[in-house]
This record gives sequence, structure tokens and C-alpha cells, in this order.
Amino acid sequence: MAGSTLGTVFCIMTWGESHGKGVGVTIDGCPAGLSLCEEDIQKYLNRRKPGQSRFTTARQEGDQVEILSGVFEGRTTGTPIALIVRNLDQRSRDYRDIMEVYRPGHADFCFDAKYGFRDYRGGGRSSGRETIGRVAAGAVACRLLEHYGIRVNAYTKSIGDIAIDPQRFDLAQRDKNLLYMPDEMAAAAAAEYLEKLIQERDSCGGVVECVIHGMPAGVGEPVFDKLDACLAKAIMSIGAVKGFEIGDGFAAARSRGSVNNDAFYMDGDGVVRKSTNHSGGILGGISDGSDIIFRAAFKPTPSISKEQQTVNRSGENVQILIKGRHDPIVVPRAVVVVEAMAALTVADLLLLKRGSRL
Amino acid sequence: MAGSTLGTVFCIMTWGESHGKGVGVTIDGCPAGLSLCEEDIQKYLNRRKPGQSRFTTARQEGDQVEILSGVFEGRTTGTPIALIVRNLDQRSRDYRDIMEVYRPGHADFCFDAKYGFRDYRGGGRSSGRETIGRVAAGAVACRLLEHYGIRVNAYTKSIGDIAIDPQRFDLAQRDKNLLYMPDEMAAAAAAEYLEKLIQERDSCGGVVECVIHGMPAGVGEPVFDKLDACLAKAIMSIGAVKGFEIGDGFAAARSRGSVNNDAFYMDGDGVVRKSTNHSGGILGGISDGSDIIFRAAFKPTPSISKEQQTVNRSGENVQILIKGRHDPIVVPRAVVVVEAMAALTVADLLLLKRGSRL
Amino acid sequence: MAGSTLGTVFCIMTWGESHGKGVGVTIDGCPAGLSLCEEDIQKYLNRRKPGQSRFTTARQEGDQVEILSGVFEGRTTGTPIALIVRNLDQRSRDYRDIMEVYRPGHADFCFDAKYGFRDYRGGGRSSGRETIGRVAAGAVACRLLEHYGIRVNAYTKSIGDIAIDPQRFDLAQRDKNLLYMPDEMAAAAAAEYLEKLIQERDSCGGVVECVIHGMPAGVGEPVFDKLDACLAKAIMSIGAVKGFEIGDGFAAARSRGSVNNDAFYMDGDGVVRKSTNHSGGILGGISDGSDIIFRAAFKPTPSISKEQQTVNRSGENVQILIKGRHDPIVVPRAVVVVEAMAALTVADLLLLKRGSRL
Amino acid sequence: MAGSTLGTVFCIMTWGESHGKGVGVTIDGCPAGLSLCEEDIQKYLNRRKPGQSRFTTARQEGDQVEILSGVFEGRTTGTPIALIVRNLDQRSRDYRDIMEVYRPGHADFCFDAKYGFRDYRGGGRSSGRETIGRVAAGAVACRLLEHYGIRVNAYTKSIGDIAIDPQRFDLAQRDKNLLYMPDEMAAAAAAEYLEKLIQERDSCGGVVECVIHGMPAGVGEPVFDKLDACLAKAIMSIGAVKGFEIGDGFAAARSRGSVNNDAFYMDGDGVVRKSTNHSGGILGGISDGSDIIFRAAFKPTPSISKEQQTVNRSGENVQILIKGRHDPIVVPRAVVVVEAMAALTVADLLLLKRGSRL
Repeated sequence: MAGSTLGTVFCIMTWGESHGKGVGVTIDGCPAGLSLCEEDIQKYLNRRKPGQSRFTTARQEGDQVEILSGVFEGRTTGTPIALIVRNLDQRSRDYRDIMEVYRPGHADFCFDAKYGFRDYRGGGRSSGRETIGRVAAGAVACRLLEHYGIRVNAYTKSIGDIAIDPQRFDLAQRDKNLLYMPDEMAAAAAAEYLEKLIQERDSCGGVVECVIHGMPAGVGEPVFDKLDACLAKAIMSIGAVKGFEIGDGFAAARSRGSVNNDAFYMDGDGVVRKSTNHSGGILGGISDGSDIIFRAAFKPTPSISKEQQTVNRSGENVQILIKGRHDPIVVPRAVVVVEAMAALTVADLLLLKRGSRL
Repeated sequence: MAGSTLGTVFCIMTWGESHGKGVGVTIDGCPAGLSLCEEDIQKYLNRRKPGQSRFTTARQEGDQVEILSGVFEGRTTGTPIALIVRNLDQRSRDYRDIMEVYRPGHADFCFDAKYGFRDYRGGGRSSGRETIGRVAAGAVACRLLEHYGIRVNAYTKSIGDIAIDPQRFDLAQRDKNLLYMPDEMAAAAAAEYLEKLIQERDSCGGVVECVIHGMPAGVGEPVFDKLDACLAKAIMSIGAVKGFEIGDGFAAARSRGSVNNDAFYMDGDGVVRKSTNHSGGILGGISDGSDIIFRAAFKPTPSISKEQQTVNRSGENVQILIKGRHDPIVVPRAVVVVEAMAALTVADLLLLKRGSRL
Repeated sequence: MAGSTLGTVFCIMTWGESHGKGVGVTIDGCPAGLSLCEEDIQKYLNRRKPGQSRFTTARQEGDQVEILSGVFEGRTTGTPIALIVRNLDQRSRDYRDIMEVYRPGHADFCFDAKYGFRDYRGGGRSSGRETIGRVAAGAVACRLLEHYGIRVNAYTKSIGDIAIDPQRFDLAQRDKNLLYMPDEMAAAAAAEYLEKLIQERDSCGGVVECVIHGMPAGVGEPVFDKLDACLAKAIMSIGAVKGFEIGDGFAAARSRGSVNNDAFYMDGDGVVRKSTNHSGGILGGISDGSDIIFRAAFKPTPSISKEQQTVNRSGENVQILIKGRHDPIVVPRAVVVVEAMAALTVADLLLLKRGSRL
Repeated sequence: MAGSTLGTVFCIMTWGESHGKGVGVTIDGCPAGLSLCEEDIQKYLNRRKPGQSRFTTARQEGDQVEILSGVFEGRTTGTPIALIVRNLDQRSRDYRDIMEVYRPGHADFCFDAKYGFRDYRGGGRSSGRETIGRVAAGAVACRLLEHYGIRVNAYTKSIGDIAIDPQRFDLAQRDKNLLYMPDEMAAAAAAEYLEKLIQERDSCGGVVECVIHGMPAGVGEPVFDKLDACLAKAIMSIGAVKGFEIGDGFAAARSRGSVNNDAFYMDGDGVVRKSTNHSGGILGGISDGSDIIFRAAFKPTPSISKEQQTVNRSGENVQILIKGRHDPIVVPRAVVVVEAMAALTVADLLLLKRGSRL
């Protein structure tokens, strides 16, 4: 398991490089009987597609998914579901600038250090296109979760210093702007900021927040496979993520027990509820039945149109100016990737929970 | 694998409850030939022992480790290393207050929701004593890393709002105060704050920072088993941790590419180095050869001596006042747990890396 | 996972050497709520204990199991169950004969080739005492299977050329003779044969057969984790096993489709049954609802009291005469080990099956 | 992991059904730097292709493999290698005969019992076409083993009662007859026997033997992941295999220690060798440096052109006559599948062994 495999019961393996023949994923362990078609997956892939706005790359990727196996007469069979997206836009380019030179903020140097060489075309396996496999599998996981009444919703919480205002929060608004911000005014301000960055040949980071509604209590394993630990790994495995927090997160480190503890109470329907949700829906690594809320910090896109200091494979100090047009931010396209990774994690632990009692 | 198993090559399984017969861990996959004795492990366990200061519980735990297998004539044999710590302080207490009632901020409710019942004595498996197995195994991992020139050092970065001053940072100071803060002045201020919290029957959180020196480049697997993703999971699996960030972490989300990118350069010895370390030593999930730096946010101790609103197993709204003396903070004792989890993660990926080339 | 870990959901890790402090096992993933006490485990361990007859070693091992965790008020809690058996009979012996010299038919040479050195005392980790962990965990698995109406029964089918007669088969007879043969006459003949071997300072092999009653249809995963494939691995992992076959096994290779196919029919209760059971209860790797029947071939005990040709660690050709008293056969004590491994395999796949449908 | 995943370091996941869009496999964990092209894989696939003789199905499958990822400039990159074979021959047939009726000796009933329904077209996931993924991945494993001087060779040892004569054994002969028997005379006799079976509308089983040359000592993990245990699982996971034995196998159960023990001696080059190889190259689960030899028993093809008694999905007793032309034996086409599974097993344990010492 060299890192492209995830999950114990709902287990996936992704493959593919930016400029190879395609990218894809196989899911081993999706329960039989789930209604599934290509459109269920395609709508998730469309949300991460490039070319949606002037803040994302113009590459026409198409990204049409094909279900190769595991679905029969519209339902999953319980056997592996193989999904493939062919790479279409493979113009032969001039990669000499990144073939020999290590781009700052990228994995080029680390891949060479690990493997001795690398597929340098467009970043190869470390390209953002690798997330297509995640999103495709995540779409299937979302479908499974829906069956159990669980919905996963992520959105852009902040871009640079511009954050959504909780007072203006409107999830319906999320899909109406190209930055996937659930706050129209913040989205407008962020767009303006990004225009400025493009002119300055620079980039910025941001924060994605994700809410999981409808979680039953009892999901997550104590000790190492805590639900929040597994979510952290899944989210931190997305390229460019540098931080993860759940519930009050880092703010909890400055809080007090008397404030941070969520009081339990019985609601009218005889269900245990909490007065507040500082915990973010997880206690002791196990879901407590309230909404799960977490955030991921994304670093600025490392590819910028400025000259930078670096070294080449021959061990010489050189300057690099990365050609082409670069996204000033990865966050908007990453929103659906966060949803996918969260769904994959919850689906796996939900199935694993079936073994916890006689 | 119901969550008490960690690692692929350097694989561990922990066991034990707070008031059962003991706690322990077995390590399957430690390479043969490593010099190891009980004292190598005991010195790590001593750092997490209670009763060290008036800020930690007075329970006399002893926590003497015994190596049961896997070591012969002072060296590891390559077969499983079983470690056990017997629980000594098992006074028969009155647990009726937590047997039937769910403590806010604790996993009591979640365990019942998951398993149908729980070992309520002292928190059972969700007790902080569970970390003994982590620390014992982590001590072996540290020993293995030392063999390869890698050192893991964690320390308290902040308690409540009181943070160490980078100007006064002195790692040698860390072990001279009971709060494990590498800054004498901050430690004194924090001690004063904790005294106040004790009087107010409250608790607080804090942040632990960890630095891994001597990492070779190339450790970590692309995609899902990125080194930072695995670290995030390992650290977030420690009870009370609510956030994880690497390098600039959440601050990177507010930064720019031109600032956040670390420039590469060749040092005098022909080694690739970086001018800055915003990345925290990892690019694309793979170590880049510089120090790895990450932080963990701990929530305030949930056990406080104030009356709190909650519910009981019968579904009634009740008040709870948790008896006994409580640590006003978990952070100082958690420092060595963070080191242990980091070492376990790095050891596993270091061994896994052996398979990356012919 | 260096080989001492088994199972995906019902997962175990064993540890311990012949002359170390003890042997044991931890089970991670046993469902909560199962009634369990030490006696449930002890009765299985007693069946593999030495000193039961003149055909097994006289060592007084005691083999008293202690449950260290995971059981509360007589029921499993869903958290790890740690089991330990202390080694009592650790007389300091003279191991020089096997310290430097590789015993034919043993793993001594292979351990040195793999690890560079080995714990040579009594075979260390490759000793038959390693099976105590298997049997202890297997006893818990049997308890779990009983809850679901599944019973696992193994017995000695043959010793050397002396096999039980199917006409005289009587399972109740199995526990009445020291060879665990369900045929009184065969047992008497085998005892006589073993007496002769002892006089000739030789040893022999035999076959263990195992029947699993009460299996529901649908257990086992297609492709790599077929129920028969997992059973084969579990059984072949017992030291001294050289062959495994299910149903008609090797005889099926000489049969015809018209004979070997089992016809299906509906029984009076509306249950699908088979007229014959050449398949041994598994089709396509998945249980078909009929009894599972398999056999394991054990080689002769390699320790014999004859002088043998071998080499030593210094690379010299030498003669070896292994001192002490040796069992002329391992089969009778291995019967319960076969049951244990079968139960562990079925328990894991039974729990895994819970994920196969919505 | 619902059974389509195999291996710890060299890890594969297969997918695909008989009459879906295709079949394939992804390999995660092949070391970087291995020379690999499609022809390296195709030549293995060609050996399992149908239509090679009148004893195998006439379906023109083509079975052209395409490498989708993980290979760059002719060498493996260390990232996942995705392989796909499109299904070409998907004539719309009339499957009503097997849609509602359970074929004796097939997995139809078990799939329904497990998943609630199944892809009935040509056996779906339980079809022999599933082995294409095994063979494709196995070809890559063979390539890796070749790099380390290890060769895997399987051949037909017997068909029905007709076995090769060890005196006439000639491996070069294997590829000269359509039954892959390394004995020209036995092959002729077997062909005659198969002709007779075709006329009688019946089928038969056989035995495949496999030899692994060039194994270094020290491969395989003690206890559960013994090399022979892993081989047993891999081989028994091939559909139709009912038995596995290594070295003398079941014959060892009738032998004596004085005969069955292999004496060690030093050869002229200072290498430890064995005078005999009753063990089949493995002691205590670890390779001893001599050839590994094992055998697999295949049952007769269950699809025969005779009327058989069975039941249908509605729970009625019915007769079934399976239409079409059936292979009278699966063994010749299974020879390369055995090689593939052996290579996958050895490759994984060989890489895992890298972690056994400092």
C-alpha cells in the first residue's frame, strides 16, 4: 500500500497522472443494492472541473466519467466499482522548464528524492488532477450516505483575509458564485481580491468548512481510528492542505472547560441533544449525533508567474519562471474534494460500525 | 481492526482500561537488531506519569513497564515486542455518579450509543491511561529513529492565552518546569494562570508544538498516506486534540504564494536546502529534508468541579458534579504523547519507504 | 505487519517466545456484549497442553490464561481483549547444541538468514508455544460463533498410515482418547504405532480434519478473500502443516464434473440444500450453507533422537543429536489449534459480511 | 476490503465482470525504476487466452492490455500502475437459463445469498475472466522478481488420472503442447482422454505444479504470514482450486521424521544447501534458499452439457441444461494464473522483508 489506497471496508485505490492516459479509482467494498449511474458521479466531477471561471485554469478537461464495473441494472453489485476519466487535453508541451528544475512549493524535489526520477509532465501524480479519483469515489460514498440520511456540505469559508459573515450565511448561495462562498457579499469582495492578485502575479490561500448533517451517534472507533482522526488524515491528504480543526479547533485551546463543554439535554422526542456544539459533533472520537463541523486550511497556489529562486537536478542554483496561466487560488475547486474525502471517511466508519455489537 | 491498531510495517496494537488489570501494547514489525531495554521505555513513561505537580492528578500510578517478548540479549529480534504496565491504584470507588450519567465533554454517551454499555470505571478505554500504550510503543519508535539520526521533540507552546516567546525559546528549559514549556517566563505565568483556574474550579486548553530533526528527504507516500496526513491522524487520535497544523498551518491560508513558497538553494555541502520553512518540512506529502514542525490544539480538560447540565442513561435531564480532584489542563502530560505518536508515524513511513525503489 | 497480525474486522496480534516471560494475544474487533470468562478460554488451552500423554512432552506448562482487558461484568466491551499466559517452566538449560547449530526441519537457519540472529531458547518465536496465542484468541472466536449457532469441530483423521474408518466415526469418542481420534480402534492402532516410533527414535505425521456446522450461506468474499482461501492461509500458517484441502480436495482433481457437481434441491422447510457435499460447503469462495469440511496435512515432528547431518553458524558441516524427550507426533495437540484458526477465519469473514448489503 | 484487494506492500485491486465493459487491475506499491511495457504483460495474458485449442472456449476475447498509468519513459514511477483489458465479445445472449436458475458447482446461489442479486451474464464477477486482472498484475510481479533473479514456472502435472512422468520431465516441452504439460507422452494421452470426455459431455480436473527458482533465504514472515500460508491463500483464491500442498505435502503426513527432514550441508561456494527438499523450500514459513515447489488441485469444470438437478430463485426444484460449448478442463489455462498468484505473493513478501532488519 504505497499511499493510493484508503479505507478498511469501503476501500478505494486511485491511479493516474496529469498527462498520462487518464485518471481513475476503484472502489472495493460498496454494499450491494445502491442505485447508481454515471450522472450521480458526473455532477460531483463537474464541480471540480477547471475552466469554470477566470480564477480557474482554462484547460478543457471534459472529465467525463465512465463506470467500468460493479453496477448492474442500475444498482451496485457489491463487487468492485471501477471508474475512469480519460485525459483529453494532452497537448505536447515544452516541459523543459520543470523537467530539470524543482518548482518551489511543489513536490518535484521530493519525488526525485523518493523515487530517483518522476513523470514531470504537469506534475504527474502530484497534480491536482489526482483529485478526480477522490471526487468520483466520494460521489459514490455520498450516494451511500444519502441512503442513510447523511448529507455532506462543504463551502469556502475564507479567501485570504476575506471570510464569510455567519450572519449572512446562506448555503443556497454557495452554488451561485464561482468561489463557492455561501455569502454573496464576501464572494464579491473575494473576487475583487483575486483580480488584484492576478495582476500582481501572486496567489493566496483560504479555508474550507464542511458540515455533515444527519450523523447517527456511535460512528468512529476509539483510540487510533477516531472519526476526527480519520477525517483529519483524509482532509490533510488533499494537496495544499496545511491545517485541520474540528468544532472550535484551535480556539478551544484558548477556552475554558466551563465554556467548551457541551451540555446534554433530552429533546421533546426523547433524543439526547447538546445545547452547544463546541465539540463539532465528535466526543472521544465517536460521533455524538450532532452536526459534524470541521475546517481545512489551504496554502496559496505555489505556481505563480513570478521569478523564484530554486535548484535544478544537477545541483545548481537557478531562477525559475513558471510559464502559463495559473489559478490564483485552489480553494473553490477544492470544496468538492473536501466533501468527497469526508464522505469516504464517514462511509467507511459507518460500515465498520456494523461490527461493534453482537 | 476496531481502532486500536496503527501502522502498516511498524504496526502496533494497544489495549487496556483505566481501572482494569493494566494497559499495554504489542509492536509487530520493529526491525531486528535494535538495542532496547526497559529503561529506554520507562523514561518516556515517567514523563506522562501523574503526580508530578499540583497541576496533575495525585494518583500514584507507578507505571512500571515490563518487556514481555521480542527482545533477546538486549536487542530486538524482529518478532513482536509486548509491553505491559500493571494498574496499581485500583481502589474500589463509588462510580455511581458516572455510571448512569453522561459527563459533558466526555465519551460516555458515545460509548453507550456505540456498544450498548461501557466500562464506566474511570472512563474505561476512553481514559487518559490509554495513552500509556502509545507512549511505550512510541519510545521504541524513538529508539529506532535515533538509530537513523532522527530526533523528535515536543513541548508546550501555549496554555490558554499564554504562549512561549520565540525569542526566549530554550529547549533545555523544557524539562526544568512542570509544564514542559521551553521558556521559563511563560512557564511561570502559565503556572499562575492555572492556580487561578483551580480556584475557579475550571480548566483550560493549550497548544503542543513538535519538531522532528534529521529527517531524510523522501519519506511519506503520495496521495492518501502523505506524511502530514498520517501525522494529522496520529495526533488527532490523541483524546482532547481538536486541531492540527503543519508549517505555517492556518496562517498559510491568509498568506500569498510569493511569501509562502520556500526557495530552494544548494548549501556548501552539495545538499538541497530551503531558505525558509513555511511548509513545515513536507511538500506533496513527502519530507523535503528540512525540520518537520507541527502543532496540536488541546481542548480544556472536560472534568471540572462545577455543576453541569446533562442527561442520564434513563433519558432524564440531570445535574452532575464530578467528584475528586481534576487536572486543570492535560497539555503538560500530553507532550510526550505527541512525541510518541509522531515517532510511530515516522518510523512506519520510514520503513515503508524501503519499498519505493528497486 | 510483520506476520503476527491476522484478520480485518476480528483482528488479532500474538506475541511471545518459548522461553521468554510468556505468550499472549490481543483481539481488536470482537463485538460488544459477548459473555466471556477465563474458563471459556482455559478449556481450549487445556486441550493443547503438553503432558497429557506419553506421546506429548512432559513439560509442566500450566498455561493459565488471564484476561487483562476488554471484558467488564462478564461481557466483552467491544474494546481490545488482551490475554496472557505466563511461561512457568523456564529452567536454565544448556542450549549450546541448538544455539550454534541449525536443526534439520526447523526454522533456525531461516530465522538467522532473515534477522541476523535469533532467540534460540527452545525455538523462540518458532516454538509450538506460539500456538497458545492462536488457541486463546480462537476460543473467543468460537464463543462468538456459538452465539450465531456455528460450531467448529476438528479431530485426528490419520496418524502415519492409520486412518479412522468413516463407518466407525464417533465424534464423542474423540475426547476419550489421547490422540483425539473419533474412532476407538484406529486410536488403539495409532498408539501402538507411536510406541514403535518412540523405540526407533523416530516421528511421524498425520492429518487433521475439521467440520464447521451451522454456517449461513453468503460468508466469504469473492476473488482474493474467498472463505476457502482464508481458511487455507490460516491453517497453513500453523507450523508443520504442509497441505490443505477442502471438500474432495486433491481427489476432485481426478474426478469428473458429472460426479463432482453437487445438485441443489429444496428441502421441506423451503431451504436450499445440496444432495452431496463434494465442494466442502464453499462455492466460488462463499459458503453455500452446507457443512464446511477441510483437512490439513502435518509433517512428522522434526525433532528426533537420531544423529543428523547439518551445518553450524560458522558454516561447518557438523552432526547434531538433539537432546531431551520429543513428541513422536504433533497432530493430537494440533487439533485444537486447527479449530482455533478455523474459528478466527470464520468470525472475521462473518463480521465482514455485514458490509455486503445496504 | 471486500476481497478484491491483495498484498501489503505490493498491493493490487482487481475489478471487472465477464460481460461488463472490461476487466482490470491497479497495482499500488511497485518499486520505481522497473523497465515495463505492454508486451511484458501481454505475453502472460496470451497464455490464458481462450480459443487456443479445441479444449478451450472459442470466444475471441482479444484481451489486449493497456497500461493507463504508473509507467513513464519505459520505467515504473513508483505510483499506481493501472491496467485495463476491454471486453470485446459481448454479444447479447439469452441468459434466461442462468438468470433464474442456480448452476450446480457455480457460485450463483452463493452470490444471491450474499448480495441479494447478481450480474448473471456469463458468471459476472465469478467468471474466469476475473483472472485477467491477476495475470496482468502477476506479469508485473514476475518482471520485478526477474530483476532479483527469481523465476516462477508452473505447468500441468496431471489431468484426471494421467500424470507426467518425472523421468520424462522437460520444461521446454511445456509450451509445445496445448495442455502445458512438460511431458510429450502424457500430453498426448491427456488429449485423448479429453476427447473422450467431450463426447461424453463431461469434464475433469487436474493438478498444476509450480517451481520458484532463485529464492533468497529469509523471505516470509513468521506466524500468520508464512510464505507457504500466503502462497496457499493466493492459490486457493483461484476459482476451482480445492487443494494446496507444498514440498511433500499430504505425503509428508504419512512419512517419518528421519526421512522427511532435509539435511543441511555446506556447498563448495560456502552456501548452506539441503541434501533433499521435502520441505519444498520453506521452513517455519520462511524461504530456506532452495527451490519452492507446490501443487494446486483443480476440480472438474462445473459447466457440463448434461442435464442436472437444481433449484431456481423462486425456490422450485428444476432441471438445468447449460447451453453452449464448455471447456472440458480449466487446468491448461490456469497454469499462468498459478504463476501470477505465486509471483504476486513472493513480490509482496520480498519487499516486506526489507523491513526485517535495521
